[in-house]
Amino acid sequence: MSDPQPPALLSSRPLDDSRTLLHRAVDLGLDFTSGELRDGLVLRHATVGELIDRFSGPIPVAGTSDDQLLESVAEIARWSISQADPRYLAFPDTGDSIAALTADIVASFLNQNLIAFDRSAPAASVIEAQLITWLRELVGYPVTPLADYQGLASLGGMWTSGGNMSNHVAIAAALAHTYPEARRSGLRAVSEQPVILLAGGVEHFSYLAAAQALGLGSDGLLWADATPDFTSDTASVERLLASPPPGKRIFMVVGVAGNCRTTGIDDLQQLADLCRQYGVWFHVDACHGGSLLFSEKLKVQLAGIERADSVALDPHKGLFVSYPSSYALFRDPNALGRFARYPDRADDPDCLDLGLITPFYGSRGFESLKLWALMKHQGTEGISRLVEDRQATYQRMVDLLERTGCFRMLGTSDFYRCAFVFLPDQVAQAIEAAAVQPSLHASVRALISRYTMAFADRLYRSGTVVFDLFALQDLADHIGLGTSAKYQVMGMCVGHPHIADDIEHGIEQTLLDHSQELTAAMLTDAHALLTATAPSDGDSVADVTGPAGW
Amino acid sequence: MSDPQPPALLSSRPLDDSRTLLHRAVDLGLDFTSGELRDGLVLRHATVGELIDRFSGPIPVAGTSDDQLLESVAEIARWSISQADPRYLAFPDTGDSIAALTADIVASFLNQNLIAFDRSAPAASVIEAQLITWLRELVGYPVTPLADYQGLASLGGMWTSGGNMSNHVAIAAALAHTYPEARRSGLRAVSEQPVILLAGGVEHFSYLAAAQALGLGSDGLLWADATPDFTSDTASVERLLASPPPGKRIFMVVGVAGNCRTTGIDDLQQLADLCRQYGVWFHVDACHGGSLLFSEKLKVQLAGIERADSVALDPHKGLFVSYPSSYALFRDPNALGRFARYPDRADDPDCLDLGLITPFYGSRGFESLKLWALMKHQGTEGISRLVEDRQATYQRMVDLLERTGCFRMLGTSDFYRCAFVFLPDQVAQAIEAAAVQPSLHASVRALISRYTMAFADRLYRSGTVVFDLFALQDLADHIGLGTSAKYQVMGMCVGHPHIADDIEHGIEQTLLDHSQELTAAMLTDAHALLTATAPSDGDSVADVTGPAGW
Repeated sequence: MSDPQPPALLSSRPLDDSRTLLHRAVDLGLDFTSGELRDGLVLRHATVGELIDRFSGPIPVAGTSDDQLLESVAEIARWSISQADPRYLAFPDTGDSIAALTADIVASFLNQNLIAFDRSAPAASVIEAQLITWLRELVGYPVTPLADYQGLASLGGMWTSGGNMSNHVAIAAALAHTYPEARRSGLRAVSEQPVILLAGGVEHFSYLAAAQALGLGSDGLLWADATPDFTSDTASVERLLASPPPGKRIFMVVGVAGNCRTTGIDDLQQLADLCRQYGVWFHVDACHGGSLLFSEKLKVQLAGIERADSVALDPHKGLFVSYPSSYALFRDPNALGRFARYPDRADDPDCLDLGLITPFYGSRGFESLKLWALMKHQGTEGISRLVEDRQATYQRMVDLLERTGCFRMLGTSDFYRCAFVFLPDQVAQAIEAAAVQPSLHASVRALISRYTMAFADRLYRSGTVVFDLFALQDLADHIGLGTSAKYQVMGMCVGHPHIADDIEHGIEQTLLDHSQELTAAMLTDAHALLTATAPSDGDSVADVTGPAGW
Repeated sequence: MSDPQPPALLSSRPLDDSRTLLHRAVDLGLDFTSGELRDGLVLRHATVGELIDRFSGPIPVAGTSDDQLLESVAEIARWSISQADPRYLAFPDTGDSIAALTADIVASFLNQNLIAFDRSAPAASVIEAQLITWLRELVGYPVTPLADYQGLASLGGMWTSGGNMSNHVAIAAALAHTYPEARRSGLRAVSEQPVILLAGGVEHFSYLAAAQALGLGSDGLLWADATPDFTSDTASVERLLASPPPGKRIFMVVGVAGNCRTTGIDDLQQLADLCRQYGVWFHVDACHGGSLLFSEKLKVQLAGIERADSVALDPHKGLFVSYPSSYALFRDPNALGRFARYPDRADDPDCLDLGLITPFYGSRGFESLKLWALMKHQGTEGISRLVEDRQATYQRMVDLLERTGCFRMLGTSDFYRCAFVFLPDQVAQAIEAAAVQPSLHASVRALISRYTMAFADRLYRSGTVVFDLFALQDLADHIGLGTSAKYQVMGMCVGHPHIADDIEHGIEQTLLDHSQELTAAMLTDAHALLTATAPSDGDSVADVTGPAGW
């Protein structure tokens, strides 16, 4: 009997047999992106338990045929969600650049190891170095053209696996810059508590994660205020820089270029001024806002980013490139050279072993080819058009939300993301009375959060329109029940430069249909609440649900 | 005039036009793996400067056509190195599993975000959880079948971007376990210096990198001795555990299951005994050795790994899966739960938001599909055959090296990697006299290193056979010039389960040809050195060149 298992390795199979299988993998991928495998929905909904029932099984012992493998993978695709579907409005990670996909496929075959040049990744190391130079130029950093390459210490940037990690790397570099003695003696040798200054309410979770992972602890964060527009309050930042709490030393200020909840953009010039005045490392988290750098028209919103000591960019967020694609850049190119295990090698213009200046990474693949290919394929002109078109599409979608009369905005930006609650006009009128009865505020807030969750959940389960869902404080008191009130909110993030008219109308109709079904129940609950004698449970807002709530 | 730039996004192009382009990407990849784009060589050699001349250029403004994009990517492929070519003998990262390639292509299209289940990665989260459960079973850890899923705190493992990172995560988890107070107060609150105990000479660079990045500093490493076989000396480990240096607390012992230079495997049982006795976290770095877990016959070499508190596995190393594919596993499943930002969510069996227990990672892609697909396609039986065949092939290649009479082994293993110098029999005989003249030792060592580098370099530039090149101490005094002597050595790492006879003969002939050309010159230099009146320069051994030397 012949062995039922097909050969495992490319080299042990006829070339055309491999070609056929891999072309079928592409076709399977296209059947997913076209919607065919998803019944035309953004997703076919199932719970954790249902999918565990479907996919769990014992460790495979015997193997399977090529056909069965493809069918298994197709089944996974059938229960996956499309972030590239225009009705997916939770997050900007569309990953649907054809150039990036092309490059990603080729990079899998090349399997270069970016730890080193010789024996590992000759051309790939050069392409990645070139890309980093281009990104520095876009940020407005001083640039040494690659043709004048002077060694790794002059490069000033690195690929990372994501924005969380880019922020980790920036913090590690800032620590190494501020406390060079820690390279040998660790943070125990530092006499004062090093702290990162950032605004609460607009921060990404990565700063707390990094403070804990890098040995600072959560005490390593110092919170400034946020403005009602969900940006860092520079007056609050200044006060804390002028008089930090006793025993603490602020070694980094975080400026946010597009926060993860409403994509509000900080006043980076003012923050840069403050950081220069107080001699503190200035980090700009541009994971969301970085795509604006490609547009001459829009990049003015990021003015001052070129004065940051470090910048985090996240092309897999908002630049149409699939995961993983993120970059940490440093104004002083030598910031990464300080991590070099062999400083003399890092200064050698014949050495392009990127592993010498990429903390946290050793052997790793050619992920940078994707963004390089997108830039080559579309040029900055083409990318600029995509980013500007997306912003116009986003404004159209905000108008759509508003004309439904179903929602109240808590935070907006003119970039690509906003946050809102489900509060139809009729219900809003009914509860207006509550604004003057403080004893009812908590109950009304709980009602709004509950129905916002219910609305988002119904939509999500239907698989027709997907918003994000997370907790947000009503800093501007848009709802009128206090600035300290926290709600479950929906987030809309428009990742798509173009949404066709019929799809837009379909989204609007879906929102109206689901709203109608919920509004009556919400009205009833509101009336009961307003006439109740006993106070209700009040607020109970979970802090995490959708991706941006993290 | 029509716009010369092709549409950027999948959704803005006719489906069949995208299909054609992406099939061509597959074909381009196959032209690389088949050798066609490499003139049949492992690589077409070029220097850093030459490739910078070829590839550097200004930031693209105008974009380019699909055809030009493909041609640019093809040109990169022409100057890339094939780790999957059987004559590539430097590193085991072949990445040529057809199932993994298939999965990698589909995963690019799916672009799931493994940070969360709902709205991000429903099926993918389940598949990754399933894979982690399988890997735990292979290690011999207690396993909760996925069908009985009890929440993230019961999962006990995570994907990472590479072995460097898996080791970082293990160290972070060990710190969080040993010093729970550091989560809030950081390492400054720890009264004694926490140190990792590991054997010098067999360690991977990641421990020093992690000690620096995680706030311990290089003082956070404590060095035990290595045995002449390049394994951790358990007697030395025991001595240090029994009486650590004053002010230091050993919080982790590293056991090495396949070191990165000779793949020697530690006595994990003995190390586990010692760690239990002294109550210290036991980490096993199985980045190289992990593939042996698939073979019933070979896994006995890793006995004791199931007693480790944490294990690092690296399927992109030695398991035919392309980058990035690495895993950190924990015997106590809750070790990762300790990083959860919302501990109650981590215990909820309806929550499968992996981002809650993956330090360093937020948004990230479906990289785990590759290894899942390989295991599904080949089963443990198929993978076991590959691993066992590779070991047999490695032994044949060691025999080949030895019968050339050109080399002297400094370190071998029966797994897949060895280290040796270029020292042809004639030269060895000529310098035998030097062994009794200590004043000549340094010069002879320098001669051997110089010719080893020259030999490896000639081979590499020819693009015909690629060995690794790095510095190694002659711990067993195989050369007879002292156990403290450090040489530039070549490393041979056999990543390929099968090397065809004609290829094997070609490799042998290439080695003999290059050896012949160098032997005469080396003999002349050796005679000059032995008859010289003045002592020569002596040793000058760089510490880093090839990937494994890192």
